[in-house]
Amino acid sequence: MKEQPPVYVGILGKGTVGSAFQQLLTARADMVEEVSGRRPKVTGVLSSTKGDFDEILAASDVIVELIGGLDPARDYVTRALREGRHVVTANKQLIAQHGEELVAAAREGGAQFRFEAAVAGAIPVIRVVQESLGAIPIEKVFGIVNGTTNYILTAMARAGLSYDDALKQAQNLGYAEADPTEDVGGADAAAKMAILARLAFGAPVRLEDVPYEGIEQIKPDDLAYAKELGLSLKLLGVAERVGDGEISVRVFPCFLYPGHPLAPIEGPFNAVMVEAPAITEITMSGPGAGGVETASAVLGDVVSVIAGGSPLFEENSKLRIAKDVEMAFYLHLEVADQPGVLARIAEILGDHEVSVRSVVQRGRGEDATLIMVMHPVSEKRFDAALKKIAKLRFLRSPPRSIRVIEEEFT
Amino acid sequence: MKEQPPVYVGILGKGTVGSAFQQLLTARADMVEEVSGRRPKVTGVLSSTKGDFDEILAASDVIVELIGGLDPARDYVTRALREGRHVVTANKQLIAQHGEELVAAAREGGAQFRFEAAVAGAIPVIRVVQESLGAIPIEKVFGIVNGTTNYILTAMARAGLSYDDALKQAQNLGYAEADPTEDVGGADAAAKMAILARLAFGAPVRLEDVPYEGIEQIKPDDLAYAKELGLSLKLLGVAERVGDGEISVRVFPCFLYPGHPLAPIEGPFNAVMVEAPAITEITMSGPGAGGVETASAVLGDVVSVIAGGSPLFEENSKLRIAKDVEMAFYLHLEVADQPGVLARIAEILGDHEVSVRSVVQRGRGEDATLIMVMHPVSEKRFDAALKKIAKLRFLRSPPRSIRVIEEEFT
Repeated sequence: MKEQPPVYVGILGKGTVGSAFQQLLTARADMVEEVSGRRPKVTGVLSSTKGDFDEILAASDVIVELIGGLDPARDYVTRALREGRHVVTANKQLIAQHGEELVAAAREGGAQFRFEAAVAGAIPVIRVVQESLGAIPIEKVFGIVNGTTNYILTAMARAGLSYDDALKQAQNLGYAEADPTEDVGGADAAAKMAILARLAFGAPVRLEDVPYEGIEQIKPDDLAYAKELGLSLKLLGVAERVGDGEISVRVFPCFLYPGHPLAPIEGPFNAVMVEAPAITEITMSGPGAGGVETASAVLGDVVSVIAGGSPLFEENSKLRIAKDVEMAFYLHLEVADQPGVLARIAEILGDHEVSVRSVVQRGRGEDATLIMVMHPVSEKRFDAALKKIAKLRFLRSPPRSIRVIEEEFT
Repeated sequence: MKEQPPVYVGILGKGTVGSAFQQLLTARADMVEEVSGRRPKVTGVLSSTKGDFDEILAASDVIVELIGGLDPARDYVTRALREGRHVVTANKQLIAQHGEELVAAAREGGAQFRFEAAVAGAIPVIRVVQESLGAIPIEKVFGIVNGTTNYILTAMARAGLSYDDALKQAQNLGYAEADPTEDVGGADAAAKMAILARLAFGAPVRLEDVPYEGIEQIKPDDLAYAKELGLSLKLLGVAERVGDGEISVRVFPCFLYPGHPLAPIEGPFNAVMVEAPAITEITMSGPGAGGVETASAVLGDVVSVIAGGSPLFEENSKLRIAKDVEMAFYLHLEVADQPGVLARIAEILGDHEVSVRSVVQRGRGEDATLIMVMHPVSEKRFDAALKKIAKLRFLRSPPRSIRVIEEEFT
């Protein structure tokens, strides 16, 4: 085989992931050459204080963007793609918010654009959805795509910690950032689900199409309930077809029945399931996005970019975002224990056609708690009922509801 | 974007998978064109009675080989690759036995060669090992890669069936072939593990380098033992580095501790785990190889072939096949209950430096059974001890041993 010229790689960003990637690329240069046919050479590393983007761009075949955030990453990536440089990035916000624009730039420049590291750390879910299943109609992609929240929920479930204490523990161990808002509030998972939905359904899902809830409102009570019934509590991202040309993409905390493939995923791990008629379901799990895992995913993309050929990223499907979906709910109510309370709540639920599957009352007098589980119901109808219930005078605290995924035969 | 010419696809084989693939390719032609940029057109389908290989070859850009077996598949695939036709195949025996020759032919012809469907049905393990993790040193690839045996073991465990009855049930449901030898004896799993080992380690692993055992000798007793201790019994394929430039590739039935990621994989499902320092571990699971699942995996490869670019398949590593490895063992002995029996067995084990972790005796007199679990030990030393034990006069039946994977901290 004749000697191939090296491939010139420019790295943008010198943070945790940028440094881990630079180190990995140097350490694995031999192996990259072996599997791709060309040896990688770093043309430059751009940090906030050092390096010049234009110089790096001019010298590179591939730009690896690990700055994060929108500005200046958006400008750099767009220019690189337009000028025919292949781009590999781990920047989920960039893709979730400007995916269409970047794909257009890649098409204009005839460049490849890869972003495996943007979703689910070391788990190659982008490659599987986009390439292995690229020509197969996917029904549903869902899973645990945020390691911080899964760590916190696991710590609350195992050690009975409060949300605040579990968050502190996660921060001490490096699983949560000093400002954890993006993770615990669900925005991080929503951006990842928007990307997965775009690839799975070929539909231009925008971030504002993805309603999300986080885990800040979860109480030890909820996890005690889960433990008693053998349920697990996870922050789920779900992207699914919901009939008649509609899709729904959402992020919410959810109880899972024992035996659900996502139930055993604990700590900072991620897991994604893909359902399609031709393959039933595939489940993939692994560690969430640490520096090294992300760097590995970026390296896999760099190798693929060098080897050449990447699937197109089309968004011309006519699917619409569904306005409503059906889910089962758990409802936690702290009430004054007086006659007629249950009757009044049941009446409101009945008025909204919400059907109750089970009710348990605990404690008496000032301490009474009602735990109700609903049959699957329109989320809008349930929300309307919940708003009415929240106004009842005998409630001692705001009602709390969490979605439930039950075994299919129940 | 300017109109691209169609891509001409020749299909070899008209059996279950061949027919399923032809149907899927026709049904998904629009989507293939959307993601790859070119529309697939079938040039011909070769069956045992109809069609001419040379004519199909001359008219095709891509050859999809779904005949199975070595002859004439080996000749067809080699010729197609040499003449620069990309080849996609699901033929595990062909790759396990002639991988090097086929890769050389692909290089000679400048053609792509893909075979995702050869291992683990719809689970894209080849793509993940070869592309996502292509430049990362993999420590271990292991899992459940045969759906027939996993179905049989699940039926034995759940319903207490004998091996023969579970096999019959699997045959009735289409999970086992009329002649199940390849599957239940472990040869099918061994071929798949040889392929995975080649890709994971870049070492030319031959089929004869893979010792394998099947599940025909498993008794309901063994599953009753597993149930009692919460263990699962699986037929595992393992390919791993075992220190100092050695690798080991094996197939064997094995008890797994509760909580092991492969423990919940039941019925005809497959699951593969990949371990590497940079990614900790990734687990992928899904249905084993049915006609539709295999056809989907083939279609994913066809799309990738059209999109262009495929990683190289190098086998120049200097790794050697290990002569021995360490494993824990369970040992089931049916003995006459007389004084000195346990002492004699313990003496033989001690002579071979096999250390016993637990012993349980059940029954008395003619029905006495000893169930022993060993600490991890050299397989060779354990085998030598087992041979000696098998000769003891007070044994009522041949000893049975099964490997055990315990939690790491025990």
